[in-house]
Amino acid sequence: MNRPRASTWDDPRDVVAAKRDGHEVPGEALRSFVLGYARGEIPDYLAAAFLMAVFVNGLSRRETAELTRAMVASGSTLPLSGVTRPKVDKHSTGGVADGVTLVFAPLAASLGLAVAKLSGRGLGHTGGTLDKLESIPGFRTQLSLEELERQVEAIGCAVVGQSKDLVPADGALYALRDATATVPSVPLIASSVMSKKLAVETDLILLDVKAGSGAFMKTPDEAAELAEACVQLAAEWGRRARAAVTDMSQPLGRAIGNALEIVEAVGILRGEERGPLRDLAVAFAAEAVAILHGRELSDARAAAEEALDAGRAAESFARMVHAQGGDPNVVDDPWNVLPAAPVRLELAVPGSNLRYFEAADAEALGRAAMWLGAGRVRKGDPIDPAVGIELLAKVGDEVQVGETIAVIHARDKDRAQACAGLVLDAVRLSDEPVPIRPLIHGWHQASEGSP
Amino acid sequence: MNRPRASTWDDPRDVVAAKRDGHEVPGEALRSFVLGYARGEIPDYLAAAFLMAVFVNGLSRRETAELTRAMVASGSTLPLSGVTRPKVDKHSTGGVADGVTLVFAPLAASLGLAVAKLSGRGLGHTGGTLDKLESIPGFRTQLSLEELERQVEAIGCAVVGQSKDLVPADGALYALRDATATVPSVPLIASSVMSKKLAVETDLILLDVKAGSGAFMKTPDEAAELAEACVQLAAEWGRRARAAVTDMSQPLGRAIGNALEIVEAVGILRGEERGPLRDLAVAFAAEAVAILHGRELSDARAAAEEALDAGRAAESFARMVHAQGGDPNVVDDPWNVLPAAPVRLELAVPGSNLRYFEAADAEALGRAAMWLGAGRVRKGDPIDPAVGIELLAKVGDEVQVGETIAVIHARDKDRAQACAGLVLDAVRLSDEPVPIRPLIHGWHQASEGSP
Repeated sequence: MNRPRASTWDDPRDVVAAKRDGHEVPGEALRSFVLGYARGEIPDYLAAAFLMAVFVNGLSRRETAELTRAMVASGSTLPLSGVTRPKVDKHSTGGVADGVTLVFAPLAASLGLAVAKLSGRGLGHTGGTLDKLESIPGFRTQLSLEELERQVEAIGCAVVGQSKDLVPADGALYALRDATATVPSVPLIASSVMSKKLAVETDLILLDVKAGSGAFMKTPDEAAELAEACVQLAAEWGRRARAAVTDMSQPLGRAIGNALEIVEAVGILRGEERGPLRDLAVAFAAEAVAILHGRELSDARAAAEEALDAGRAAESFARMVHAQGGDPNVVDDPWNVLPAAPVRLELAVPGSNLRYFEAADAEALGRAAMWLGAGRVRKGDPIDPAVGIELLAKVGDEVQVGETIAVIHARDKDRAQACAGLVLDAVRLSDEPVPIRPLIHGWHQASEGSP
Repeated sequence: MNRPRASTWDDPRDVVAAKRDGHEVPGEALRSFVLGYARGEIPDYLAAAFLMAVFVNGLSRRETAELTRAMVASGSTLPLSGVTRPKVDKHSTGGVADGVTLVFAPLAASLGLAVAKLSGRGLGHTGGTLDKLESIPGFRTQLSLEELERQVEAIGCAVVGQSKDLVPADGALYALRDATATVPSVPLIASSVMSKKLAVETDLILLDVKAGSGAFMKTPDEAAELAEACVQLAAEWGRRARAAVTDMSQPLGRAIGNALEIVEAVGILRGEERGPLRDLAVAFAAEAVAILHGRELSDARAAAEEALDAGRAAESFARMVHAQGGDPNVVDDPWNVLPAAPVRLELAVPGSNLRYFEAADAEALGRAAMWLGAGRVRKGDPIDPAVGIELLAKVGDEVQVGETIAVIHARDKDRAQACAGLVLDAVRLSDEPVPIRPLIHGWHQASEGSP
């Protein structure tokens, strides 16, 4: 057998061996490796060994920045130079009943900002933002970059599919991570998230890093670590970013399912519904307005609340839906436009005492909705836009025996009944009052003195 | 993004995730993974991620045994039931000028033992045992298993190429390790080495674990760890094994190069040459005779020395060469049979004082010989059997200025001259006496109470 060679970095195995042994890889060597993989010159198996070495031994801040830089350099970038409004991007690390983007984008647009949101498809519990919007008949998510820019300049927002030209290395690496059990790594997640944000020229990047059972990051501390990694990456790029660590111990909104989440978003956009989903969308919009319009946060928050209550955010949404080929009447009469499931099953609070809503396992509820057909197991699987679950209580709520706490929207009675069992397993009631968890655990921005 | 799934072991990624997180993998799951890879059902990239996770987080003793068991189960085994003599196998982890097998196999045969040696091709510094033997014109290393058994029963020894039917998983995994910078891992090396030894039914397995600059294991402690892992694996199989940790801080023999090593082995087999190569071959033969014939080690050693000095080991070698299609005159007049290089360049001790031979970098000398054409960079590369380097001094020797310390055998003068520079860079002389390093650092066998 052969002695390991000294590292000359000519051989891509040197990069893998360095990470394997916990050493730092020089920037140029790391960049060549990532770009070589994107061009198909580095085989999957070598990249897989690299990803596992990174997973176990980590990446330094410098290496994470270099990896991200290489990923951005693997494709084209989107300057959005035709958009004159202040530009804000918003990204969520993903959760259950997470319809923030559906509310935030038109809300920010109605406040004079521009949101050109490139979104991915959902894999897992429920559909992604694209899947939700496509439950509106006719809604197009494949716009050309010119169309995207024109729409954002005119209306203030657009939500379209991730472009294949932007950050192709991320798509390739993410698929390989999914196939090799190397997804939940802070530097790999951070570079994946931020490469896509940094490839689009915006004035502010807002990140919603979820923490709890329905998210990757199970604890606020883990989520804070990812949030820090992301804002530091932005700082090294000279870009402004703020990251909130938010609660995903229960579903954020009431609805889990594609058309159901559009209905809920419309209710919030029309100023008719309250709750954590509205609160979080307002918090992000206020942060963006405060930073980009130079206003006090309390003023910015009031402006955002008012844009919802006065229906201006709903108007922006209707304009966006119309511009992207959907029926804008979805705002006035959603159930006239959206597909409805044939079976509706109401679930009542079981037992015999006054009870408190103690916990709702976000992941289990997401899986139950996926089982109904609302999410996809594999890339390319079809999803059923009509089905899903509405969970009417939040942790801490007082509930009465016999009161409806959930509504299941299903294709048939058997599925609905079986799903009811999954939902009851996923929620927990208590005889004792239950404290309410904070919605936002904290905000993160790059530390003083960062580059 | 999706929460990592709970491990059901149905998905092979669960095995990778468990090793990634430092958990033990149940035997059945590990076995399915390895056999699935051998059958081509597990893709290279997933196996690469597994290997890197194992490299960084290690394998428990139980897991190492299970991996080895799965590797053996991936192919057929060799019962050698037609061989009536006590059977001994001997394996070296590889070094420079390591011709022990060339001497050991006929020596053990001349002492009444049977050695059916399945050998690999060299990759790196110099050729493997097969390449060395193939420098004898006509020598065949591809025998059928029937031919192998018949020859070993008749003559006592045979050296043939590794059969593709035995331990196919090892070939596949080793190639992947080489391609993914995951070779130097104790449990992976141990299971690779031992799976091939355990697939052949023998009464004793002897292992030569090299330690030093010319070996994988740079220190005796590292080598002892590998030796322990190997003998424990044998014990779990109910097989007898002894492992010696031996010095590879300088080349073991005098010759580095294929025909040159045959010439040196012949000199030792004829009882004409002394030195560490003879000493080590005798030590292994004595160990085998002591254990398999139930003799005192000192008696066994004396018998081995005598078999060399009386020329009986040389006779066994001649019979083996003849049986495998080579010219047995190689024993009487090697240079009449073997190819010689056209250029011989003698290197003299430089400087002006009486000096001591302080160090010879085994790896650098191996590379110098490879550069002459004696080794291969890539699998399938041709090698030049005639070229190589003879290094005439050992560490601790007193050398005189002007005395020849090395002879370079090359295709042309330019190569010889350039190689001379490499050789001079690889050796170090001193004005002070230099202590001699021990040849054998220690012997290992399975601890008491092992299964």
